[in-house]
Amino acid sequence: MNPIFADLPTTVFEVMSALARETGAVNLGQGFPDDPGPADLRAKAAEAVVEGWNQYPPMMGLPELRRAIAAHYAHWQGLDLDPDSEVMVTSGATEALAGALMALIEPGDEVVLFEPMYDAYLPLVRRAGGVPRFVTLTPPHFRMTESALAAAFSPRTKVVLLNNPLNPSATLFPDEDLELLARFCRQHDAVALCDEVWEHVVFDGRRHRPLMAFPGMRERTVKIGSAGKIFSLTGWKVGFVMAPPHLMRGLAKAHQFLTFTTPPNLQAAVAYGLAKDDSYYEGMRADFARARDRFAGGLGSLGFSVLPSAGTYFLNIDIAPLGESDDVAFCERLVRHHGVAAIPVSAFYAHQPVRTIVRFCFAKRDDTLDRALERLRGLA
Amino acid sequence: MNPIFADLPTTVFEVMSALARETGAVNLGQGFPDDPGPADLRAKAAEAVVEGWNQYPPMMGLPELRRAIAAHYAHWQGLDLDPDSEVMVTSGATEALAGALMALIEPGDEVVLFEPMYDAYLPLVRRAGGVPRFVTLTPPHFRMTESALAAAFSPRTKVVLLNNPLNPSATLFPDEDLELLARFCRQHDAVALCDEVWEHVVFDGRRHRPLMAFPGMRERTVKIGSAGKIFSLTGWKVGFVMAPPHLMRGLAKAHQFLTFTTPPNLQAAVAYGLAKDDSYYEGMRADFARARDRFAGGLGSLGFSVLPSAGTYFLNIDIAPLGESDDVAFCERLVRHHGVAAIPVSAFYAHQPVRTIVRFCFAKRDDTLDRALERLRGLA
Ligand SMILES: CSCCC(=O)C(=O)O
Ligand SMILES: CSCCC(=O)C(=O)O
Repeated sequence: MNPIFADLPTTVFEVMSALARETGAVNLGQGFPDDPGPADLRAKAAEAVVEGWNQYPPMMGLPELRRAIAAHYAHWQGLDLDPDSEVMVTSGATEALAGALMALIEPGDEVVLFEPMYDAYLPLVRRAGGVPRFVTLTPPHFRMTESALAAAFSPRTKVVLLNNPLNPSATLFPDEDLELLARFCRQHDAVALCDEVWEHVVFDGRRHRPLMAFPGMRERTVKIGSAGKIFSLTGWKVGFVMAPPHLMRGLAKAHQFLTFTTPPNLQAAVAYGLAKDDSYYEGMRADFARARDRFAGGLGSLGFSVLPSAGTYFLNIDIAPLGESDDVAFCERLVRHHGVAAIPVSAFYAHQPVRTIVRFCFAKRDDTLDRALERLRGLA
Repeated sequence: MNPIFADLPTTVFEVMSALARETGAVNLGQGFPDDPGPADLRAKAAEAVVEGWNQYPPMMGLPELRRAIAAHYAHWQGLDLDPDSEVMVTSGATEALAGALMALIEPGDEVVLFEPMYDAYLPLVRRAGGVPRFVTLTPPHFRMTESALAAAFSPRTKVVLLNNPLNPSATLFPDEDLELLARFCRQHDAVALCDEVWEHVVFDGRRHRPLMAFPGMRERTVKIGSAGKIFSLTGWKVGFVMAPPHLMRGLAKAHQFLTFTTPPNLQAAVAYGLAKDDSYYEGMRADFARARDRFAGGLGSLGFSVLPSAGTYFLNIDIAPLGESDDVAFCERLVRHHGVAAIPVSAFYAHQPVRTIVRFCFAKRDDTLDRALERLRGLA
């Protein structure tokens, strides 16, 4: 067994969801909405399953979906992508990320990673043969600094892996940070691998800015998006990758050997969904913002110290004021004795864990959130 | 870019399917049926999309599907698998294979591969850091020999990758070969990674025997199956992995980081499908055997030299009697000038290509096969 994988624990998201199922806890751990998702997309997918093509679609994805992706990002972020050579459909953003790392990295290449980070990043980088260099970001602002980037980048830097909006901190990097990072990428001739799956889920009038749109980044950025996040259908596992042709050629080979294709019926429904006009996206954001406010407000009334959430399905509380110094033990107690599953944010750090932040997913129906709040009463 | 992937051509299956779409050729290249697949499974999937759960299912797969897989293989192959610790659902057999190689191999481990082999095997082995050792199998019988295995196995052998029934040769390994291979695995303490996706598609009263059922193999075999092949729904990308718990733990980690989960609606429909009784499988085999006989008979009448097909969707012709010595050039002419896409079998060899065998997929409607035969008239 390869120890990089074999020695790892099961992902905290799965562990917490399993515990929630076992104990009947309200599951605010793993990030998924508890509503059924848009009825019209589900109807489209059903129609495609019954009446459409159920054999291998083209490896790069259905042409109509690739065109819909290019049109969506042209309209929304001003990106100019050729659907034939710069867009690929993957079996979720995780596959896109795994494939990109397999394709971009040669053993010994350095990869700059920001902590906190999604728990798949580090094992994938290691398994690809990459050497991680960490930039540690800390609450409450999770900002980059020039000196931290200078310490992490080197002549051997091949890739920098950015998650923006950032899970679990629920922050967006300001333009200033992105400009700084773009400068380091250009100076070191590094590829930016941008996990931007939360790009649509930003609040209070903010706009996500794709790193690909910064000067000199178009030719060195791989951008990853997720239909599961856009349409609140996390189980569909339809992801997108966008990259210039010279990078896409390698990414396509990795996709060829990881999953080869993605179910055509779900792809057809996503193509339909991406044609929705701005009001859909605005409605989605407004709904999530309302849920965020309801839950943040409730937590605040209960006495919890709530960190701001600028984007993603998540918000965090600081448990230090409660006299807690071990987020894992806190979450264990929460799920086993109080019936609420949450995620200890230390799980997102590889070597300098922050131990006093706990993440909740608020992408839930009102009654789910209210039930959780009821159970959290008296803990702060 | 990692050269293992970047330097590879696009898979011949995709190239030929794209050429067929462009030229309007009858596509007998890539292996997929041209019928819509079982209506009842498609209806179940549609129902699950509209009425069921569309968020992340459990990482290992829906419990009802894992139970259905265990029950299916217990009934059909006498395998005794624990659905909780020995069965996992993947996003197709390709993901299962990629994950298994990533999990099982450490850089420098040797992997025994049989040529001809599916074109994903070698790059995946190389990208995992494995050192390939080839056993070359040759027409018409594609048999193993003790001396060939002895030359390929070594004290550094970690994994042997077996495809049985074998694509593209359309042969099954006889028990004698499987016993020989099992002996080598035991002697070298090697894991057998068995791509048995064609196990249901065997003809003329033959029965596939899983390598896992041979003495001493239960604890050292990873078996891969495919709902796409069982139910003629290749686009669904629902695969299975079966392995003893000590191996499954590593495989699950690889799955966690490659795709994490597989669409729950398609999983639910496959669970329903696996409950079908033997008559479904017999009917499927009989239908494919009829198609095989129709196409083989037609090719024979046209003067082609047809090799026997004991299983898979495929049959091969020997083009040497036609004075041909380059299968790639032959297939290029076939698709461009005669309107039939086929696969040159040399694409399945890494270093000692057989150059005079051409593979056709016969899993097609009668009129598709007849149209292809009409176009092949006069070529032999
Ligand atoms: C793939 S499970 C995790 C989902 C997610 O993005 C999260 O909870 O952070
Ligand atoms: C994944 S495309 C190839 C399908 C297949 O098994 C074949 O044609 O050999």
